[in-house]
Amino acid sequence: MPSTSMEETSFKKGAVVLDTSLFVNPDVRRSFGPNPTAALEGFLFMAAQAPVFEFYMPPSIWSELKNFVEPQKIPGELFVYLHQKSPKRYELTTPASLLYELVEEIRDRVNRGLRVAERAARNPEGRATDEVIQDLRRKYREALREGIIDSKEDVDLILLARELDALLVTADQGIIKWADKLGIRWLAPEKFKEYMTGLIKKVKYLSAVPETGEDPTSST
Amino acid sequence: MPSTSMEETSFKKGAVVLDTSLFVNPDVRRSFGPNPTAALEGFLFMAAQAPVFEFYMPPSIWSELKNFVEPQKIPGELFVYLHQKSPKRYELTTPASLLYELVEEIRDRVNRGLRVAERAARNPEGRATDEVIQDLRRKYREALREGIIDSKEDVDLILLARELDALLVTADQGIIKWADKLGIRWLAPEKFKEYMTGLIKKVKYLSAVPETGEDPTSST
Repeated sequence: MPSTSMEETSFKKGAVVLDTSLFVNPDVRRSFGPNPTAALEGFLFMAAQAPVFEFYMPPSIWSELKNFVEPQKIPGELFVYLHQKSPKRYELTTPASLLYELVEEIRDRVNRGLRVAERAARNPEGRATDEVIQDLRRKYREALREGIIDSKEDVDLILLARELDALLVTADQGIIKWADKLGIRWLAPEKFKEYMTGLIKKVKYLSAVPETGEDPTSST
Repeated sequence: MPSTSMEETSFKKGAVVLDTSLFVNPDVRRSFGPNPTAALEGFLFMAAQAPVFEFYMPPSIWSELKNFVEPQKIPGELFVYLHQKSPKRYELTTPASLLYELVEEIRDRVNRGLRVAERAARNPEGRATDEVIQDLRRKYREALREGIIDSKEDVDLILLARELDALLVTADQGIIKWADKLGIRWLAPEKFKEYMTGLIKKVKYLSAVPETGEDPTSST
């Protein structure tokens, strides 16, 4: 029987938290299927063959995903490979220093949002109102939303990954920034299928090679 | 010698965290002095006679206050009664549930800010640009700033009061809302001078009356 290394044990418990982008983003989901439902089914089929992972999705993210997929078209058995779980919102804590960073970042963005609004109100180029409004919405969104955590779904992903010490698969730059602040491992979804394949191979290799730490001839 | 009750001991260590409003707001500071510098001096003089309190101010708030007062006009000795201290930003934690509340509140306010901006850009009443901009700034500020913690100074006040289990003296509605979420005692600054007077009387009264818990005839 092959030895069980520490590393292998940790792979076997390897929790992975998934954002919607793995199934929704067209460039990303392609490796799993031609449309979101097929991509989810393709992913679940692969997950069923990769017991080194435990996959999690916060229910809030699942609700978002249901706007894109038709779960009733996927064999129900496959859903045993995707756990739905929220983080322990009333037990977890976050470092107070993060609160400063969030408040300061928002303050800066609120100021940028006002400059965008003032420019639209002045309309120095004398553009048509509809064009001004479209431009305002886009620039306001850039100033206040992009690259920042701005929804309870975002917080769910960050906190669930923290709670489970999981790998977080997301393309959202605001979430990635916070994952880095908190020491959470993350992976871009377009790399995820190859990562799964690589890790399955690595585990097979480790299972086949005796663990040096357990070699009786090398013990002191 | 009068007995020392639990309650009195807790008064003696009674930490109080101060915002600038006690000295800056004209309606509030009047009880301590006719201008901010005189109000600060008047307060410090009273604090020197009230050893039941330990007064704290985060250095970030002190920096704000220095825009209004001239500390060099106040006898240096009095500053022994006002400790400058930041919260332990890298040790304290906050409940994760607060992060959800903050993110959701900001999201709602960002949406309101966009509606204010769109209305200014459309200018349906055909007002003069300067008037539109003034109105935009006021309404945008209301939507995104008022009643919410929006600066590191705000976070300093909340966290220092939490760290010291202190009474927080502030008139800021955003800070008060968070104090309530976290179980921090707070007091409106216009009540503070009377509160000090009342508490000094209470401590004197408790010092003069024997504590029933320490009555040897009632011990079991």
